[in-house]
Amino acid sequence: MTHNAKPIAEWDHDTLREECGVFGILGHPEAATLTALGLHALQHRGQEAAGIVSFDGKQFHSERQLGLVGDHFTDPATVGRLPGHLAMGHVRYSTTGETILRNVQPLFAELEVGGIAIAHNGNFTNGLTLRKQLISQGAICQSTSDTEVVLHLIARSKKIASSDRFIDALMHLEGAFALVAMTRTKLIGARDANGIRPLVLGDLDGKPIFASETCALDIIGAKFVRDVENGEVVICETQPDGTITIDSVKPFAPRPERICLFEYVYFARPDSIVAGRPVYSARKRMGINLAKEAPVEADVVVPVPDGGTPAAIGYAQASGIPFELGIIRNHYVGRTFIEPTQSIRAFGVKLKHSANRAEIEGKRVVLIDDSIVRGTTSVKIVQMIREAGAREVHIRVASPMIFHSDYYGIDTPDPENLIANQHPDLESMCRFIGADSLAFLSIDGLYDAVGGVKRNPLSPQFTDHHFTGDYPTKLTDLNGRSKNDPKMLSLMKEAS
Amino acid sequence: MTHNAKPIAEWDHDTLREECGVFGILGHPEAATLTALGLHALQHRGQEAAGIVSFDGKQFHSERQLGLVGDHFTDPATVGRLPGHLAMGHVRYSTTGETILRNVQPLFAELEVGGIAIAHNGNFTNGLTLRKQLISQGAICQSTSDTEVVLHLIARSKKIASSDRFIDALMHLEGAFALVAMTRTKLIGARDANGIRPLVLGDLDGKPIFASETCALDIIGAKFVRDVENGEVVICETQPDGTITIDSVKPFAPRPERICLFEYVYFARPDSIVAGRPVYSARKRMGINLAKEAPVEADVVVPVPDGGTPAAIGYAQASGIPFELGIIRNHYVGRTFIEPTQSIRAFGVKLKHSANRAEIEGKRVVLIDDSIVRGTTSVKIVQMIREAGAREVHIRVASPMIFHSDYYGIDTPDPENLIANQHPDLESMCRFIGADSLAFLSIDGLYDAVGGVKRNPLSPQFTDHHFTGDYPTKLTDLNGRSKNDPKMLSLMKEAS
Amino acid sequence: MTHNAKPIAEWDHDTLREECGVFGILGHPEAATLTALGLHALQHRGQEAAGIVSFDGKQFHSERQLGLVGDHFTDPATVGRLPGHLAMGHVRYSTTGETILRNVQPLFAELEVGGIAIAHNGNFTNGLTLRKQLISQGAICQSTSDTEVVLHLIARSKKIASSDRFIDALMHLEGAFALVAMTRTKLIGARDANGIRPLVLGDLDGKPIFASETCALDIIGAKFVRDVENGEVVICETQPDGTITIDSVKPFAPRPERICLFEYVYFARPDSIVAGRPVYSARKRMGINLAKEAPVEADVVVPVPDGGTPAAIGYAQASGIPFELGIIRNHYVGRTFIEPTQSIRAFGVKLKHSANRAEIEGKRVVLIDDSIVRGTTSVKIVQMIREAGAREVHIRVASPMIFHSDYYGIDTPDPENLIANQHPDLESMCRFIGADSLAFLSIDGLYDAVGGVKRNPLSPQFTDHHFTGDYPTKLTDLNGRSKNDPKMLSLMKEAS
Amino acid sequence: MTHNAKPIAEWDHDTLREECGVFGILGHPEAATLTALGLHALQHRGQEAAGIVSFDGKQFHSERQLGLVGDHFTDPATVGRLPGHLAMGHVRYSTTGETILRNVQPLFAELEVGGIAIAHNGNFTNGLTLRKQLISQGAICQSTSDTEVVLHLIARSKKIASSDRFIDALMHLEGAFALVAMTRTKLIGARDANGIRPLVLGDLDGKPIFASETCALDIIGAKFVRDVENGEVVICETQPDGTITIDSVKPFAPRPERICLFEYVYFARPDSIVAGRPVYSARKRMGINLAKEAPVEADVVVPVPDGGTPAAIGYAQASGIPFELGIIRNHYVGRTFIEPTQSIRAFGVKLKHSANRAEIEGKRVVLIDDSIVRGTTSVKIVQMIREAGAREVHIRVASPMIFHSDYYGIDTPDPENLIANQHPDLESMCRFIGADSLAFLSIDGLYDAVGGVKRNPLSPQFTDHHFTGDYPTKLTDLNGRSKNDPKMLSLMKEAS
Repeated sequence: MTHNAKPIAEWDHDTLREECGVFGILGHPEAATLTALGLHALQHRGQEAAGIVSFDGKQFHSERQLGLVGDHFTDPATVGRLPGHLAMGHVRYSTTGETILRNVQPLFAELEVGGIAIAHNGNFTNGLTLRKQLISQGAICQSTSDTEVVLHLIARSKKIASSDRFIDALMHLEGAFALVAMTRTKLIGARDANGIRPLVLGDLDGKPIFASETCALDIIGAKFVRDVENGEVVICETQPDGTITIDSVKPFAPRPERICLFEYVYFARPDSIVAGRPVYSARKRMGINLAKEAPVEADVVVPVPDGGTPAAIGYAQASGIPFELGIIRNHYVGRTFIEPTQSIRAFGVKLKHSANRAEIEGKRVVLIDDSIVRGTTSVKIVQMIREAGAREVHIRVASPMIFHSDYYGIDTPDPENLIANQHPDLESMCRFIGADSLAFLSIDGLYDAVGGVKRNPLSPQFTDHHFTGDYPTKLTDLNGRSKNDPKMLSLMKEAS
Repeated sequence: MTHNAKPIAEWDHDTLREECGVFGILGHPEAATLTALGLHALQHRGQEAAGIVSFDGKQFHSERQLGLVGDHFTDPATVGRLPGHLAMGHVRYSTTGETILRNVQPLFAELEVGGIAIAHNGNFTNGLTLRKQLISQGAICQSTSDTEVVLHLIARSKKIASSDRFIDALMHLEGAFALVAMTRTKLIGARDANGIRPLVLGDLDGKPIFASETCALDIIGAKFVRDVENGEVVICETQPDGTITIDSVKPFAPRPERICLFEYVYFARPDSIVAGRPVYSARKRMGINLAKEAPVEADVVVPVPDGGTPAAIGYAQASGIPFELGIIRNHYVGRTFIEPTQSIRAFGVKLKHSANRAEIEGKRVVLIDDSIVRGTTSVKIVQMIREAGAREVHIRVASPMIFHSDYYGIDTPDPENLIANQHPDLESMCRFIGADSLAFLSIDGLYDAVGGVKRNPLSPQFTDHHFTGDYPTKLTDLNGRSKNDPKMLSLMKEAS
Repeated sequence: MTHNAKPIAEWDHDTLREECGVFGILGHPEAATLTALGLHALQHRGQEAAGIVSFDGKQFHSERQLGLVGDHFTDPATVGRLPGHLAMGHVRYSTTGETILRNVQPLFAELEVGGIAIAHNGNFTNGLTLRKQLISQGAICQSTSDTEVVLHLIARSKKIASSDRFIDALMHLEGAFALVAMTRTKLIGARDANGIRPLVLGDLDGKPIFASETCALDIIGAKFVRDVENGEVVICETQPDGTITIDSVKPFAPRPERICLFEYVYFARPDSIVAGRPVYSARKRMGINLAKEAPVEADVVVPVPDGGTPAAIGYAQASGIPFELGIIRNHYVGRTFIEPTQSIRAFGVKLKHSANRAEIEGKRVVLIDDSIVRGTTSVKIVQMIREAGAREVHIRVASPMIFHSDYYGIDTPDPENLIANQHPDLESMCRFIGADSLAFLSIDGLYDAVGGVKRNPLSPQFTDHHFTGDYPTKLTDLNGRSKNDPKMLSLMKEAS
Repeated sequence: MTHNAKPIAEWDHDTLREECGVFGILGHPEAATLTALGLHALQHRGQEAAGIVSFDGKQFHSERQLGLVGDHFTDPATVGRLPGHLAMGHVRYSTTGETILRNVQPLFAELEVGGIAIAHNGNFTNGLTLRKQLISQGAICQSTSDTEVVLHLIARSKKIASSDRFIDALMHLEGAFALVAMTRTKLIGARDANGIRPLVLGDLDGKPIFASETCALDIIGAKFVRDVENGEVVICETQPDGTITIDSVKPFAPRPERICLFEYVYFARPDSIVAGRPVYSARKRMGINLAKEAPVEADVVVPVPDGGTPAAIGYAQASGIPFELGIIRNHYVGRTFIEPTQSIRAFGVKLKHSANRAEIEGKRVVLIDDSIVRGTTSVKIVQMIREAGAREVHIRVASPMIFHSDYYGIDTPDPENLIANQHPDLESMCRFIGADSLAFLSIDGLYDAVGGVKRNPLSPQFTDHHFTGDYPTKLTDLNGRSKNDPKMLSLMKEAS
């Protein structure tokens, strides 16, 4: 197996990474083509691998590849191997499971009643526990992906209908999931009881679509219908007469929705509308609230591109300080260049960004970033801005400090590596970064920007454990294991 | 997934093809390197894919590739990803299962008691039946390979020890197999009750080896110890004190050995010793017997290279007619060239062979071939020899006529496509091929050449169903299905 | 030869494309690594191929590749094959010469006095004429690249020293060039008499550097020294005692500098300083001037990203209308997806951009673009913005109308395909695009934004033929040929 | 540039290697396809690279690739890029010039009168001298191949017609060549004055063909017409009326033909007829003469495959000792496997060959090899045969001892590395190899086998310098240079 996925620049290691995006469409003659386009629009949710499964009325077809959607699914031969009116796909980072081809989703199983394919965004907090149980019962896991557990639960369900088996399997899962599944006649979308990860229902000329974000509907000109609700299973099915029915089931005990705030802070595309709220507007409002909470005298508001740009526009509008592109992004990125031994300062950063000296020199700069994780990149950016002649550098972060790990499909560093846990106070953090001042948006400022509400501590309206430590689900695997336990049970390594 | 395996020339479609070769070694610091060399020596048994699994004391490692052993396992980086003292490997053609990467062996499963890898030469005559049962019990088959069934049987066994589970699984199998398996401490070799496919035990400086043929021992300078017996399971294990023990179990009801005659006729390398009999000598003796059974007045004995060469040497020595290389083989083969539309006669043949005109012209030629399957190649070869000026062309075939399909791991055409089934008599066949005379070795001539015995019709000493229709095992899948039943249950296609 | 360069999306065909970027450094132990980084910063100037040549004191080394710098020159093995303290490189689009490997620069020739390598940004207006003369004298051209002509002129010069030969060759050239050359001891930079294409001299710890733009100095932390002047040849040489000397020669008849305005309008990176003028500031000022020349009542200023962003910031600041990211760019681009036959409107555009509906819906939108070439993309963008619910769409273009072809290294469509030549007036153009109003920046507004001056019609301060038809040089090839003449003499095609 | 050509096994370093094979055809609608087939038949003459040039009436097309003909020219897309009725091709080893793509032939140049392509088998003994002269006159050499010199001589010729220029260029050359060239209407074949390298003229349905050996005619069913004579230039041309004319020119001072004996000993395919003599028959006769010159009491005659096989058949027939395949060749070769550090004896040999123990054990073996170069392989083969249980091992070599280097296109080790120069006498050599006896064919025995004559010392009938030191041409480059002079002038290295 060979692939083109090269190690990414150091820069990338100082962000949180979403694991996945999903897409599915039922009833369209160009199902695989539309799925490829939908996945392309969701590419920001996962860049390590992509896969599409289609069903042509007789047979399932699968293409799974390491790399970007556009690296492979632009090839007519590849898409030509995916015939049929029903297709679904997946883009991924790996949070559990190394990135090897057999882990690339959608995963497929053949049941007695026919094949089933599933694609998953999220993470199970009892995945390892379930895996161990299944193996002790004779299941053979061919991937190291958490998602395979769902397949085994479906295969072992005592129910008859594939959709009943699917729901039966979901009942065992704990954690976060937005799942899309397909059988020979059905396309199914499901969200966990808290609705931690997003999933929307769309429509293209009467054909139902599931997608992680609305931007995947926009690229193909499909209409947004509604969000799949938290705890809902939506079953689209082609009937023998060719009509398509859409049913809704709510098998879980009802809970209030708590979508993850990081979708608004960082992950979702700014043009997406997540849980009814436009992402760009929420981000801009984070900047507005930040300007109110942490004003500063300055000459220019500069976003750390691209994540900080909407908040910087908000900050500039609220503060009256001019917005300028003081940092220019290099669009040809994605590879790790060899670092000269005679070291260039701020090397890793400069591969992706450079200071726009003419807008920086002699000025008091407010840098707006979406979030700070380890802080190592912030150090380099401040250094780069200072070397470009800035008189003062003030950092304003459009989200609160991050103290806690994620277990719901976001790749977070160990808590001890988070900058918020490495410094006793804001001042120490500011010194470490080398800024003249530093401020983070408050949790209530974030709640206000996203939901127009204050945080209700008794029943928080969002999933916010990164900032608060308030996890919305049980953490079975975590509690059952020692520090050194493997995340994966499997001891097998396969080159990809 | 991309690979280099190109369609092979038409020529190849007129032969029988063996599905597999297996190799394993326990206790050697260069286990993977030696496995790669062993598989290279077994390359003639399968050229579509190769795989090696190793265990380094902590973790299993796997590399599976489409193409020749030398295409991939000559790369130090690849072999470097296979550390450990225990390794096994596999070369394959596909008889069941398309050639896609997930079907390439060894296959691996993680059991509650630890991982197990298996590699298989042969075919189960109840593979589909078992597969259906397993799926109805909730098993998920990730490959379309027959071999995966063994993994599931092992995983579902109620036994504790992995070797007990392995034997437990074997008890369900019907058909032919020479299996090698490895766990964290054991290397296991097993042959079916009839011993249809070969497997030998070797020794390199005290380290046990299993291999399909002795030529894989020779390449690494290992000693031949003995054949694994029919119905025997040999378990080599590293003990806690570092010593290696070798145990033998015979779990099946005892049956007389009946190794497949085609190993002698065509598959095994001439320098291998199969079931105690040197292959080259057997082939030469087939030629000697053929000269006695079917003499002809001629000027020159010409082998169809390379398969016919040993028999031609025997025929020449027995008849006193000079042996000459009247057909020259092109060693740079393996690709299908574009056929000119302004057609060259005997095109497909000429890519691989050419007539050595100076030895042919004006002569009465006896062509010696190892076997005739469809006969289409024979037509072209006779045509080529005639165009080179032969005065007469007599064909002598060093094995009997083939009437029946194989179900034990050899890729045979449908019986209606076999030349022996398409003609009422030898004379018609001879006319079709365009030869002046045609003769096949008798079944007793073959038995004599291989075993020095006459065929015992009550209890044949060899597996000879190709010629006689006498199958040594039940054929459960065959009897249970209609003509149009898929060989595979799986309806999923994945590009490779 | 295989390569990954895939056809780019239709979108790209509606822009002008720069042909090249050049970089060279003398005296640094990591010369090739720094060259790779410099080329990465210049990647926007040419994305089809990249090459680096180094000299290690004994031998020249060359690596030339199709694709991005980061596709190949991030591999330590590749950079390791480029030892030495002297290196230079090139990124390219192809304006003359198909993109095949033998055309990828730097080109190299061995002279009697030793090797010489050259890399070229620009285009000769007498390249074909020179090529024909050389061939009639027995020269063999191995590439179809215009640049090879320089090599032949150098090889045939009667001068002795390689730098004298280089200058001798330049005297024959007509058109635009920024050239970098290297011999065993020298690194040479040269600009044509008008200075149409940019070239700067930089310094890293006392080691001289040539680069197309200052952003290539910034990425490696080098200092900007000065522009290479129009008509100047700068010769850097390592002396026997290890010191580096820098000499300047002005071999051409003196002419006033006329740098190409399109460097400011579109090509150069916004953080570069070209001919002493920061590009971002010039672009922003184009937007400010545009707001003055063509005001409009509107609710939101939306840039067509990324080219239109600085001008949009300027337009918003000057007009007081809020700046918003109403179009979101997809960063994962570069491939042509299969277009669904059941067509999605504005398909090509949506692969790269999507409307940010929440900022568009119900609003009067001013779209700011850097330039309009064919106009086909503008049609789709307006359509996309209207479908997102805009009440009005006004287009403001931050450069004048384009009427004329380029012959200096920019890939322009045939004049009859330019939108400005296809419509009798602005109103017709506006109707074609589907906007509510349309305005272009005036030529004086552009001169003011870039140079703070009005255009001097007797001696224009910039190269502006795209807008005015005023070409700064002779056009020998153009005048000497008929419409159907091949751009290349060569009749040979080689796959790449 | 990437390619698949991997280092070949150590085994190969102990043979002489021919540099090239050439093929061309004029007037056939499937010219490129037939050229690919012809080159496939000539693959034994060069395995590092292959190229084809075609002309479609308007444009030349070229495909040049590292690797085997079948690796690339079996792809319909590749052959499809080579349209036209006129095509020629080349397979090569590199004797001068590293194997990089720009050295792969045919080479092409565009002259004022139109394009010309050439392909070359042989080597010039004044190539470097000519190259230096050309560069001092301003020529630019883009390859490091000796053959490019011919192109420059053609380009600089004062003659008008391309065939006159071609002949003019030939007049400067010294050494050995069999050249094929093509222009827009002509296909030209030429041999040097001595006719050292072979070239034949063939005919397919009235269309003329040039090929290095007759086996390339046989594969496409073409007729052998005659050898191109020594010192002859044969010009085939399509006339305006569509007829094809064939002219013969003899521009050189007449000399007797002296074809290279190594074509018979080793290079040519056994089914080829070289200079009127069947190669297989000559080789068999070498064995017959060897049996007469150096008889031995033994049980079995064993060829070292495949080169020694015809001579072994001859030896066996003449001596009455049975011929047996005592060494089996592995057909899946071409890669260098990783050598186990715990060394296997005779490792390199075993990758390609293995002893057929059953035919060796306890026997007195006569090993027949075609030639011995360094002798290192012979040592390993003897060792392998002894380990297989041979009682005695006698080596008989079907050619004389090799003392001298070649300068005519054969890759020979430095003379001091030849076994014949490393030992004072046959007995010492025999001890080194480890054989019980050793004998070489006499030079007169070789002359008799090939030509039925004794060697005429005043005017030898063949080129035999390897054995005698009698070079048929001047050796200008050799005499003009010191030991350390580079074979190539070029100091540039380019990765391939």
